[in-house]
Amino acid sequence: MYEKSYGSESFAQVAASLASIARSFYTRDWAVGTSGNLSAVVDREPLRLAMSASGVDKGALLMHLFLLVDEHARVLSEHDAKPSDESLLHIRIVKERGAGAVLHTHSIWNTLLSDLHATAGGLAIEGYEMLKGLHGVKTHEHREWLPIIENSQDMLGLADNVGDTLSKFPDTHGFLLRRHGLYTWGDDPEEAKRHVEILEFLLEVVGRTLLLQRGNRQGRFDDGFGDDSR
Amino acid sequence: MYEKSYGSESFAQVAASLASIARSFYTRDWAVGTSGNLSAVVDREPLRLAMSASGVDKGALLMHLFLLVDEHARVLSEHDAKPSDESLLHIRIVKERGAGAVLHTHSIWNTLLSDLHATAGGLAIEGYEMLKGLHGVKTHEHREWLPIIENSQDMLGLADNVGDTLSKFPDTHGFLLRRHGLYTWGDDPEEAKRHVEILEFLLEVVGRTLLLQRGNRQGRFDDGFGDDSR
Amino acid sequence: MYEKSYGSESFAQVAASLASIARSFYTRDWAVGTSGNLSAVVDREPLRLAMSASGVDKGALLMHLFLLVDEHARVLSEHDAKPSDESLLHIRIVKERGAGAVLHTHSIWNTLLSDLHATAGGLAIEGYEMLKGLHGVKTHEHREWLPIIENSQDMLGLADNVGDTLSKFPDTHGFLLRRHGLYTWGDDPEEAKRHVEILEFLLEVVGRTLLLQRGNRQGRFDDGFGDDSR
Amino acid sequence: MYEKSYGSESFAQVAASLASIARSFYTRDWAVGTSGNLSAVVDREPLRLAMSASGVDKGALLMHLFLLVDEHARVLSEHDAKPSDESLLHIRIVKERGAGAVLHTHSIWNTLLSDLHATAGGLAIEGYEMLKGLHGVKTHEHREWLPIIENSQDMLGLADNVGDTLSKFPDTHGFLLRRHGLYTWGDDPEEAKRHVEILEFLLEVVGRTLLLQRGNRQGRFDDGFGDDSR
Repeated sequence: MYEKSYGSESFAQVAASLASIARSFYTRDWAVGTSGNLSAVVDREPLRLAMSASGVDKGALLMHLFLLVDEHARVLSEHDAKPSDESLLHIRIVKERGAGAVLHTHSIWNTLLSDLHATAGGLAIEGYEMLKGLHGVKTHEHREWLPIIENSQDMLGLADNVGDTLSKFPDTHGFLLRRHGLYTWGDDPEEAKRHVEILEFLLEVVGRTLLLQRGNRQGRFDDGFGDDSR
Repeated sequence: MYEKSYGSESFAQVAASLASIARSFYTRDWAVGTSGNLSAVVDREPLRLAMSASGVDKGALLMHLFLLVDEHARVLSEHDAKPSDESLLHIRIVKERGAGAVLHTHSIWNTLLSDLHATAGGLAIEGYEMLKGLHGVKTHEHREWLPIIENSQDMLGLADNVGDTLSKFPDTHGFLLRRHGLYTWGDDPEEAKRHVEILEFLLEVVGRTLLLQRGNRQGRFDDGFGDDSR
Repeated sequence: MYEKSYGSESFAQVAASLASIARSFYTRDWAVGTSGNLSAVVDREPLRLAMSASGVDKGALLMHLFLLVDEHARVLSEHDAKPSDESLLHIRIVKERGAGAVLHTHSIWNTLLSDLHATAGGLAIEGYEMLKGLHGVKTHEHREWLPIIENSQDMLGLADNVGDTLSKFPDTHGFLLRRHGLYTWGDDPEEAKRHVEILEFLLEVVGRTLLLQRGNRQGRFDDGFGDDSR
Repeated sequence: MYEKSYGSESFAQVAASLASIARSFYTRDWAVGTSGNLSAVVDREPLRLAMSASGVDKGALLMHLFLLVDEHARVLSEHDAKPSDESLLHIRIVKERGAGAVLHTHSIWNTLLSDLHATAGGLAIEGYEMLKGLHGVKTHEHREWLPIIENSQDMLGLADNVGDTLSKFPDTHGFLLRRHGLYTWGDDPEEAKRHVEILEFLLEVVGRTLLLQRGNRQGRFDDGFGDDSR
């Protein structure tokens, strides 16, 4: 494990934070079957990231399973493992947003919603107090547009799509890859984790709201149930 | 951390209880992404509350992250942190109800139901044995009306709405803020925690009952399924 | 805590088992807000049960919170606490079935199903391999009829209803109290716990099957989806 | 417990892995009420498997509750317990696929889907990134066909059905037994566990997609909600 300190965060510090976050995501079923990946910036000039290794059980992710990579996802630390297949996406997000940490989850609700709203190219979430936990958001009267990008195995092409999407939507706090999952980021691992928790929560609220809405013969969500509501 | 003892509860005692409760709420997904807040009365004359700090991860909430505040939410303890943004709501509830502890959760079901029944201004829950765990309720044949208040970032105005609602509904054990969450209280942290667990349970039962009801073409919940019920 | 040994099980042994079971039920959200109760036979002649105390948080239930009671629910051990309000139901079940342990849970799904099928007086569960875990059941081609009894605060009357129901349905492994919860039992705490887990699982399967069935415009559960099924 | 080493895995090693996996499945509600079973190959010539004992609480499954069995499910280790009733299924899967470990879970969603698609004889899952975690799958543009086999108490007949199904679908990574559960396997316990997590995740996504789809009056999943999507 690479132990030298760089810039404002040491590799060991961020790897430990990310490992702890990964295990908590696994517990919540957001990173099962070795899915999901996590990264954090260790230095900016030149760009160095701590990146989770590929194919690791996130419930057992420990510090030593992080690699130091450069901006081309080349491994700099002495390590047998490969970095996550999606390293180029993390790197692009860091560059576009100046993020300090990038997190990727596969959850039931982010997968369902990424599919449901794919044709619209994204989904809007607004009016929830929970949105205030997103960086820079001060009121529940905020409209968060989460873009949905088509999934692809061509990582270079996908990284370009991610970059274009982030340019086109400079205020978004995350995006969905269709039938794949959620990407979000933050200034540091803690903020990125907070963003994941908020967006996963809101995606489930939005999804379940649709179920309640769709089952209603009149098509409206709020039926003025009053005393009938039991 | 402020350690002096006041009245019937010491600050340290209630802060420890509330911290433990916060962590259990986080585990249940009722306080994710730093949402939720908790308070307990340390003294009544003058009014002193232990209040959770603003923006703290409730899964990592420890005793030292509670502040001592007065009835205007001014911080009395030596502490770098800010008290919860919603401190004025806690204070109003304590004053209106003589509560010993106030708890606020953001859950999937309390968020969904706060939205679904907003037009009606509240929802009724009745007939469930679980209602007997609410303070003063002796039978399942109890009708609990949970008012729904529109959310706002104007804390002074919102505290007044809360106060008015509590005066108008003197028997209610809690209320919902639309697209925000649940507030409930108790004589002490343990009772308030019991109330949260009961109301969160019942809100999920009510919500899922609606799904079963709405999917039914005849619109009735109980269809006399008998042997067809599988 | 009463420590003398009786018959085949000592009080300490069964209280420890039940306390552990209670805490696992609380973790599963089957005994929140102090709901639920547990008992086990300590001696048969005369009848002595270890009974959970009333109003205790099941997540914190320890051995010392069990009382020794007789067949009239009178407390024999030196204990400040009251026995569960539903002690008479436990005693009646022990007498009718010769059970060694009786467990009572309040879960989302047992509450929903107890309401949904109330008019039919019960619900049938058949064809599931999971049924084989019920005492005496050797094949999935078993039809389990779970009676639903109307809830009441009149414990004497309710105990009689429970007794009558158990006489009328000698093969049933459990019953539901409407808008209240599930009662099941076993030869010992371990078997009763296994029964709870199996019935709670099956009630959720039955409930979710209804949702899938009701949402289907043709009213059938299996639509021969084949390749459309995604 | 049988401690001699065979071939590439020692009995103790695989029993420890499987016990840990069983307890994690129990925590996820995939092996409640003593359901589920697990095996791993200890030697191939002659065939020797570590097999979970019958009727054991999977939340308490420890290494010593595994038995060494031969290809006829006869117990070779000195052990009072019986091997799992479904040992012959594990053995057949090992022979047909050359698997190193076989895992069987009973979950809410695998039970629901096994029933829903029974008439079609199976269900297809395609287009999800999560499929890439299955052995040999390199892209999300993979179509996984999960056969559904009718359940039976005739283990010999059922083992033959399993064998025939595996021959007929040489690429499948698992199969469902109707109203019973999921069987999957891998080169070792870790891979089999990864397969369970992936398939259980995808079965829930498929099931919940159906609910969202069925509730939609137009019958389409993606309605181009755009800004209406809340």
